This record gives sequence, C-alpha cells and structure tokens, in this order.
Amino acid sequence: MKTPQLTLVGAGPGDPELITLKAIKALASADVVLYDALVHPDLLTHASDKAIKIPVGKRCGKISPKQEDINQLIVDNALQYGHVVRLKGGDPFVFGRGYEELQYAESFGIKVNIVPGLSSATSVPGMNRIPVTTRGINQSFWVATGTTIDGTFTKDLHLAIQSSATVVILMGMHNLPKMLDLVKQIGKHDLPIAVIQNGTLTDEKKVTGTVSTIEALVHEHQIGTPAIIVLGEVVAL
Amino acid sequence: MKTPQLTLVGAGPGDPELITLKAIKALASADVVLYDALVHPDLLTHASDKAIKIPVGKRCGKISPKQEDINQLIVDNALQYGHVVRLKGGDPFVFGRGYEELQYAESFGIKVNIVPGLSSATSVPGMNRIPVTTRGINQSFWVATGTTIDGTFTKDLHLAIQSSATVVILMGMHNLPKMLDLVKQIGKHDLPIAVIQNGTLTDEKKVTGTVSTIEALVHEHQIGTPAIIVLGEVVAL
Repeated sequence: MKTPQLTLVGAGPGDPELITLKAIKALASADVVLYDALVHPDLLTHASDKAIKIPVGKRCGKISPKQEDINQLIVDNALQYGHVVRLKGGDPFVFGRGYEELQYAESFGIKVNIVPGLSSATSVPGMNRIPVTTRGINQSFWVATGTTIDGTFTKDLHLAIQSSATVVILMGMHNLPKMLDLVKQIGKHDLPIAVIQNGTLTDEKKVTGTVSTIEALVHEHQIGTPAIIVLGEVVAL
Repeated sequence: MKTPQLTLVGAGPGDPELITLKAIKALASADVVLYDALVHPDLLTHASDKAIKIPVGKRCGKISPKQEDINQLIVDNALQYGHVVRLKGGDPFVFGRGYEELQYAESFGIKVNIVPGLSSATSVPGMNRIPVTTRGINQSFWVATGTTIDGTFTKDLHLAIQSSATVVILMGMHNLPKMLDLVKQIGKHDLPIAVIQNGTLTDEKKVTGTVSTIEALVHEHQIGTPAIIVLGEVVAL
C-alpha cells in the first residue's frame, strides 16, 4: 500500500517547454494525474505509461466538474492509488484554487507538496517582449482575475490604475468592456493595452492598442479566450 | 562564424529544479553564459563544458559590474563567440533590467530571444504554502521592488495596501522599517506579514507576524538579504 500524497504542480502558461524540472520529476513519480483542460497534452508524456490520467479541466463556456468534485477525486485517488499529481495551468496558487485542494486533501491527512509554475501573468507578456517592469517607467505590477467584476475587483482596479503598476488581468475577456469603462472613468483613455490569446502557444494571437481603441481591434482580429489583458506604459515599448 | 544572438533566461527563484526545460535547452546551446550572483551554481552544468562562463552578478553590498558594463559584455561576447545566454535570477523582466539588455543588444543588430523564469514573487510564497490569491479572501496581488523608497513607490504602496491585493515586495529588506511605517499610517497594524530569506533554497529562513511585530521577529531570527516580504490576509492561512 502506497502512502497517499498530493503534489500540486504548475504546468506553466501553455508552451510545454515552460514547465520546470521539479514538475517533470513529480509527474514521473505520479500514480494518478488529474489535469486541467488548458494543460498541454505533451506534458502528460512525462508521467509513466502506467499512471492513470484523468482530465478534470474547467474551460469557459463548457460543462466541467465542480471544484468540490475535483477535491473529492484528488482524495479518492490518493487513498486508492498513492501519489496524485494535480497538474494545473500556470501556477497552482495564482487564481488556481490550489489552496482549496490543499486544504481538502490535508483534512484527510494526505501530505501535500507544492511545485510552483510559471504564471501567464508575467511569462506571456515576457515572451511577447513586454516587460512587466522597466526601470524609469514603473516599479510594480499588479495581477487580478477578471472573472467577476464585483465591488472588490472594481475597487482594486480603481486603485491599481492610479499607480505606476503594469496591470495584468487574467480570465477577464468577457468583462473587457466594463473594465475599459472603469479605466476611462479615471481619464486614462490613451493608456497602452495588449490582449494576448493562447499566450506562448503556436496559435498565439495578439493585438495592441489603447484603452480607447482596443475593443474594435479585439473584434477585428477575433481575439477570444483564453486571453490575458496587459495595461501600462510598458506595452508601448 | 556563428550568428550573434542573445537569450535572456530566467533561472527561477533559487532551487535549481525550478528552472524550465526551455531554459535548459538555451543553456545547452550557449557559447557564453553570463550569470547573476544569485543563480544556483548547479544550473551552469546544463551548459556545455566548452561554453565560457562569466559571473556578472550584482549582490547587495558588494562591488559588482555596472549595468552598462554587463550590456557591453553581452554584445562583445555575442559578436565574438555567437550565442550568449544571460542567466538571470527569477524572471528577466521582473525587476531584472532585462529590457535594457535587450535594447542594447538589438541596437547592434543582435537577435534576442526570451525565456521567462519563475519569479520569486509567486514561487517563494507558494513553496511556503502562502497562496498569493485565494477565493473568498482576495482577487489580486501586487508586486513591487523596495530598492528605493521614492515618491512612486510610496504612492504605489499606499494604493496597494488599500486594495484586496496580497502585496509582495522584492529587494526591500533595508527599507523594511520605512515600509512598515507607511502601512501603519493607513492603520493596518494587524495585517499578517511574512519575510522569507533565501526562498526555495536549503538555507531558507522564514518569519511570520503582523505589521506591528515583524521587525522584532526579523531581528530575533536574524533574517537578512536576499529576502521577500509578503503582506496580506493570505499569509495567515
């Protein structure tokens, strides 16, 4: 009987070469891999042929398992088979709900390891020659999820947009018009902005413009999800 | 004669297993590696024995090359030997001055590639079970450099600390007292805070407390540089 354990592994932004050695080692020792929909299929080849591979991905607009069901799958598989690797897009703790999975597994006495991954927040701009920070331009960057435009998001964006920070918004495409309205209310109509779909993958698409022009460009170039939004002077470099 | 080219490579936060496959491939094809002081020596073994390896690191409090000299070293080595890998701690574009190196190299017609790395901003908290975001607690995180506490930094921190964001400050240890004063001015004396030195390495040291208590704890446990500072409710999880 193997000891039940869970390793939360960040798979990186998309390009299968943007995974770490530590992640590959974890996959190689997995008895079960529970993987997100956005994880590149090539990454599964790092796991043993004998490992059970189960897709549990959530993807915008499609029916997908509830978080509670994923938590239970983790626990059931760890107790039955041993080492579960939960392979998550980006980093497990950057809007990844990794902490919920960690807490649930630990409540069953299952040991949890963490392997951070490259978040798309910095790596997707980076691969596109957009430095989230540059000396003389800004001293910080700010990363938010745009899944829900509630009071907290609105307040955070209102504060962020007044700072020197490059603002990176993940999973915010369906709320893009509302977000742009918030930025316009502060008067930053000319702030440079980039929208990048499928960042670091071969089918990556990118448009750059300003807060005033980006919506038309997104429609014209048919930029869809998943995409990240980058606002800040560094976009114009 | 080889074609001169530069690859800016992120080495990750410290642990030599937290480097990507893409970074390893770049190192394997390097004719010259120019590496930061904080880069783990094991990473150099990914480069060929024939590759020239030159330390160009900057480290707090020691005499080190100027940025202009590093820029020139990149260009000189690329023109003379071919493929230069500039191996930088963390991510090249997160307070890494990578964009300055890119611009200088391109001004000589040298092709530049970018390989993002794991920034310590997310990976060091992550390895320490601190999720920079957690549903129900916050919807964003904010990353700043604390090297200089000028007006821009002060304004950014003042805005960030009023948001739901987890605030992560890199390279800010010598300005810790001033930063804590800024947070106290907003009345957040009880905000949880962690200070982590040598994150992800075997000699990692960590203390957690509140804005009121952390200075005494840092002294008591002799936490020095390099270290990251994490402020937010997620620290108390």
